[in-house]
Amino acid sequence: MAISPNSDLPGMDDIRDAAERLRGHAVETPLLESPLLNDKLGGRLLLKAEVLQRTGSFKFRGAFNRISRIDAGIREKGVVAFSSGNHAQGVAAAARQHDISAVIVMPSDAPALKIANTRALGAEVVLYDRKTQSREELGEAIAGERGLTLVRPYDDFHVIAGQGTAGLELAMQAKAMGAPLDAVLVPVSGGGLMAGCALAIGDLSPGTEMYAVEPKAYDDTARSLATGERQRIADGAHSICDALQVHTPGELTFAINAKRLSGGLTVTDEQAMTAMAEAFTYFKLVIEPGGAVALAAVLTGALPVRGRTVAVVASGGNVDPDLFRSVLDRPGAEEAS
Amino acid sequence: MAISPNSDLPGMDDIRDAAERLRGHAVETPLLESPLLNDKLGGRLLLKAEVLQRTGSFKFRGAFNRISRIDAGIREKGVVAFSSGNHAQGVAAAARQHDISAVIVMPSDAPALKIANTRALGAEVVLYDRKTQSREELGEAIAGERGLTLVRPYDDFHVIAGQGTAGLELAMQAKAMGAPLDAVLVPVSGGGLMAGCALAIGDLSPGTEMYAVEPKAYDDTARSLATGERQRIADGAHSICDALQVHTPGELTFAINAKRLSGGLTVTDEQAMTAMAEAFTYFKLVIEPGGAVALAAVLTGALPVRGRTVAVVASGGNVDPDLFRSVLDRPGAEEAS
Repeated sequence: MAISPNSDLPGMDDIRDAAERLRGHAVETPLLESPLLNDKLGGRLLLKAEVLQRTGSFKFRGAFNRISRIDAGIREKGVVAFSSGNHAQGVAAAARQHDISAVIVMPSDAPALKIANTRALGAEVVLYDRKTQSREELGEAIAGERGLTLVRPYDDFHVIAGQGTAGLELAMQAKAMGAPLDAVLVPVSGGGLMAGCALAIGDLSPGTEMYAVEPKAYDDTARSLATGERQRIADGAHSICDALQVHTPGELTFAINAKRLSGGLTVTDEQAMTAMAEAFTYFKLVIEPGGAVALAAVLTGALPVRGRTVAVVASGGNVDPDLFRSVLDRPGAEEAS
Repeated sequence: MAISPNSDLPGMDDIRDAAERLRGHAVETPLLESPLLNDKLGGRLLLKAEVLQRTGSFKFRGAFNRISRIDAGIREKGVVAFSSGNHAQGVAAAARQHDISAVIVMPSDAPALKIANTRALGAEVVLYDRKTQSREELGEAIAGERGLTLVRPYDDFHVIAGQGTAGLELAMQAKAMGAPLDAVLVPVSGGGLMAGCALAIGDLSPGTEMYAVEPKAYDDTARSLATGERQRIADGAHSICDALQVHTPGELTFAINAKRLSGGLTVTDEQAMTAMAEAFTYFKLVIEPGGAVALAAVLTGALPVRGRTVAVVASGGNVDPDLFRSVLDRPGAEEAS
């Protein structure tokens, strides 16, 4: 697929069109704030609760939009996707709503909850070994053998446009709240949600700074933004953020993000877990580690909020109870003010 | 205060007026559903996420509406309230938004989180011993001494109308989702939220059955509905549902509920805790024990969902991390499908 950055990238019209397609299928997730946390930060923090999206993460948006674009005759054969979990569930649910079958290639060490939910949504799950097998090759092989359409997790025109509907909602909700956005922070793995949000927010709120946030161990987008070239994480990196373990930015997504973002921020696993505990206390939300990195970047002061209005996307909430329990069992988790 | 049931009770116009006053101050909380949980139940379960309301419970609605109705000259002296926690935070936040002071009388054994949050919202907290002191007398004494207006937790015209805005939203959201409501279940303590919802839903969706849900140990409303007379729980009852420990239904609230409800249901503490764990998995929400009883009544089958559409209100999410951790550390909590 040849990519010419100025013509084959989605724009605002594509995001608006995706929003129309998603109406009545996706949840318009609320943009929340906590007066207590605002007091503590000395500014206004808005949180886009994509954990409340269908299947517990934003991924449903892009998957649904993408599947809705496949020609009906081809679509009825079904789709295939590879994913550590959230894209898996998003594709499975979107396929079910289109009444077609889905095969999902997942790493054998993905959270049990994500595997179980993907199966419960009616998808066929094919497990692979993250250390020895390539999910891309496996996914493409299955697609070829069975005539299935591959739904890529981020490097796809319609997937990016679909994820952009979260940014479209965010910008409109902030406007309705009388909260002009100084900055928006988005968790980044392949960069689809970030790119979609950057397009929508860049269009509706041009003065807003936008930042990608990653786990320190998977800072490929931050490094790529700093150098202007797509960088690659060496094998063997480890992070608790299972949803954010892509080794290099997408081609399409980086073409958008390199142009639109103010930069990349990183947080440690510890900081992500602290943010999960704070979200429990202040927002009554369950956020998974990868979904909490943007919030973490604000809570650690990596992006200052004092005297400003900053929005973060909480991108997913699919976390096993064991991990969540350990998050609540940490010093500071009880602190309420 | 003399009560004539047919003239001094709020109606639909009062709820609509409250909704106008709350616009831009309260959160329009989402009505959520989980396709996976729907599959399991064989019906459609909608959950009104009042845990996402300002201060983590529905109480802000009634408190804000009530305070907005006090004559300005009297209001500026401040307000007083007694509460185990959620009403406390609701009144504290509503007082702060009206730029007036608030004194809150709280039991010394209320959850630490609720006491801390009430203080953090700028209220003066006066603790009392639940076993030896009367919070009503203490609250009224402070009101008299300092010239403060008492904001009752449920037995008040404008508080009921304010809580009714949750029911108004619920009915309109269900309609927008194309989900005609067969039944609505609401957690009940004094009955203000239930009465407000019964008025709104009874008006907008007259065929919908409505049920009060209580902890088994505090089943005063269920028994009162069954006998037609306000019953009283003996002292010494115990439940993990700290928000639902009122000993007898309110006078105004029971006048409404006795006329409108199909009946009262009860759940055990164990069942409430299981519902909290299910809400973690399926809705990514933090619900406190008392806030989870309506969901529990559906999950236990006390109110069947199969082939029907049933809505529950998740009324509050202010739970200490220790308790939430113990909820996740139970058999079945890991089960995802």
